[in-house]
Formats: sequence, structure tokens, C-alpha cells
Amino acid sequence: MNTPPPSERGTVRRLPQRASYDEAVIHAILDEGLVAHVGIAVEGQPYVIPMVYGRIGRHLYLHGASVSRLARQLAQGIPACLTVTLLDGLVLARSAFHHSANYRSVVVLGTAVPVTDAEEKTRALEAITNHALRGRWAEVRPPNAQEMKATSVLRLPLEEASAKVRTGPPHDDEEDLSLECWAGVLPLRLVTLAPEQAPDLREGIQPPVSLFESRFRRDLAAR
Amino acid sequence: MNTPPPSERGTVRRLPQRASYDEAVIHAILDEGLVAHVGIAVEGQPYVIPMVYGRIGRHLYLHGASVSRLARQLAQGIPACLTVTLLDGLVLARSAFHHSANYRSVVVLGTAVPVTDAEEKTRALEAITNHALRGRWAEVRPPNAQEMKATSVLRLPLEEASAKVRTGPPHDDEEDLSLECWAGVLPLRLVTLAPEQAPDLREGIQPPVSLFESRFRRDLAAR
Repeated sequence: MNTPPPSERGTVRRLPQRASYDEAVIHAILDEGLVAHVGIAVEGQPYVIPMVYGRIGRHLYLHGASVSRLARQLAQGIPACLTVTLLDGLVLARSAFHHSANYRSVVVLGTAVPVTDAEEKTRALEAITNHALRGRWAEVRPPNAQEMKATSVLRLPLEEASAKVRTGPPHDDEEDLSLECWAGVLPLRLVTLAPEQAPDLREGIQPPVSLFESRFRRDLAAR
Repeated sequence: MNTPPPSERGTVRRLPQRASYDEAVIHAILDEGLVAHVGIAVEGQPYVIPMVYGRIGRHLYLHGASVSRLARQLAQGIPACLTVTLLDGLVLARSAFHHSANYRSVVVLGTAVPVTDAEEKTRALEAITNHALRGRWAEVRPPNAQEMKATSVLRLPLEEASAKVRTGPPHDDEEDLSLECWAGVLPLRLVTLAPEQAPDLREGIQPPVSLFESRFRRDLAAR
């Protein structure tokens, strides 16, 4: 928690005791998340779109159809904000006022730039694919030239990022502790259900081990 | 799927076959979500912040500390974008290119305005509390005058909203169907774990029924 904020605008103002600018904290949240909400503004109107992503070192990668509006806007180098939120639980206090949520979130400010180098683009798509399911890239047919052309990849540096984390039980006012009201945390967890094979799957192909050893199940077992 | 888009800027361009402007579809997604990602732009820089919310009819309600940066910005009547995303599964194709996600998302464009009427403000806070956990408002101590003053509530109309939904198996190219590669969907679900009571909970208070009949568990049982 001793890493200083990266910038004035990237400083958490509200409940700063929940803030962290520590790279390890930020990376861990980004690696656990699956969907980022990416915001851009066009003539003052913000648009927030859910996107999958991948991380390589100190860069995040996004991808989209080359023709998509968001990809085209981002590729022009306009300011963006990427937010990833992990919801860990509902915090149920005795007073309505002290209800809260346990969460871990990261906000990244920056400018996304298009990746044009073929090798970096391929590694970025690998990172995005493996971010969703570890080891998946090695199992599948890689993109051909036409598919690479139809896909745009953007790189967002993790230079201006902050994390915000709330954990633990509700904090009620002293005078509410005697109320006849249950208080505590209802933990929430994203889990996987049994894989559903494609209707057109060739006979005799078993689900890969990666599917059953996915990080979701590991998380579930580890806690 | 026959409801027309509410506006030019609120029209889904990319994969329009996944779009819906049907009020029932939009409300169902908003009611199932727990966290919205709210975007505003300040001098061209977007900020995307996770927020809980509630819905009453054709309006969404947000709340925050009266002193928070986002609440103050939104209360000035600047354009906002609120996005709710439910991630239903990872779509694992035989080709990297056709990997996707099953999801249901809603994007709302509009201007949030501060709620000043005391009665509406109270009902909004009730809706936000009960949105997280059905019936919770009736169990807890309602906000006192000081807490109401410290809380700002914003109303966002659901006038310019769109939903986007992907369901079903991967769609691989014909020539990839014979590959030695598993394909299908890994379903994801947000579930609750056992409630954790507050360390300072009075003896003899049992968890309320609402906790065990929460919508998460019902969803899990119903599918």
C-alpha cells in the first residue's frame, strides 16, 4: 500500500484507505477478472462497453473486429478508461446506510494504441485467449492471415492504474449493535458449471484437462 | 426483438442480430445484475466506476456519498453511460478466431439527475437495497436524517437503452469441424457461498430466510 498514486487524476479520492497503487495487487485483480468495462467519450458522450482482455507484463491487450466502432475509436488514440471489478460479497449491516459490497476493482486510465507488429499481435491474441482459459491457445487452430486482418488489437499501458479493495464484515454504528437484525457477509463467487459440448462435436473427442482445471475451480477449491 | 432502437447513437452497430430494444429484455438483465459500470467524461477523459443500483419502473437509481467525485459530476447533469454485463459462459471454438463469450448486457445512455424529493429518495434507497438482496430493506434500520443528508441519489431514465445477448454453442467454420479439438461452452454462474455472520453479532440471531432464498440460489436451482 506504499506505492504512490501514478497521477493526480488517477488518485482514489473516496475512501482512500481502500486504495492501492501496488503493481502486484493491480495485476492480481486484472488476472482474475474476465471482462473489462472500457469507456471512451465521443463528443462528450461516454460509451462503456464490456470487453475481454489479456495482460502481458505492464500492458493490457484488447481485441475487436477491425470494423467495430469502439476499436476504430480507440485506435485513433483517444483517452480511455478500463475498469475491472470482482464482486466478492454483499455486506449486510444492521442499518441500511452501512450496507456495502466486498469487491476488488482496478481502474486504468490511458490511451490505447493499435498493435501493428504481426508477432506482438499474435502474442496478444494468445494472451487474451489464455486469459479466459489457461492453455487454450495451444489447443486450437491459430488465426490465419484473413482472420488476423479482420481482428484489431489494441495495447493499453498499465502506467496509470489504481486498485480499490473492500474486505471484511459490516461496520455498524455502536448503538445499532443491539438491534434484532442479522448482520454479516453473503459471499459471492463466479464458478463454472459442467462444460456443454458443441452439438457438432466430432465423436470421441474428450474435454481437455484445462477445462476441469480452470482457475475458477482452483479458486473454489483453494478457499 | 421488434422494438426499434431509441436513437441513432443508442443503436447497436456491431453484430446487430444480437441486439434488442425490448423493454422486458432490458429490465430482466438489469434486475439480474448486481453491479453497473458507470461512465462519465471530464474534459474528454472518461472515468468508469462500478456502482450498485436499483430499478423502479422505467428509472434506474444510483447512490453515493454526497461528497464523492462521481456523484457530484453526475449531479451536474453531464452525459453518462451505464452498462450492466452478465457473463454466462466462455464459448470455446476449434479456432482461436471464433472464441467468444455468452453474455447479456445492457447499455443505457442518458443524463442522471439528483433526486431531491425525500419520499422518492427513500424509495430509491429501498430499491437499491432490495435489488442486492430481496426483502432486506424491511429487516434493517432505515436511514436517519443525517445519513440521508450524507447520501446522494441519482435518477437515470431508461429511455435510451439497448440490450445485447449471445447464447448457444460456438460457430466454427465448416472446414474446422473435423479438427481434433474439443469445442463447446463452459458455463459461468455467480453463486452465493454460506453466509458469514459479523463477529460482533448478538447471540441468538439467526440468518434471515431472505439470505437462503436469494435470487442467486433460485437461479442456480432453476437451471
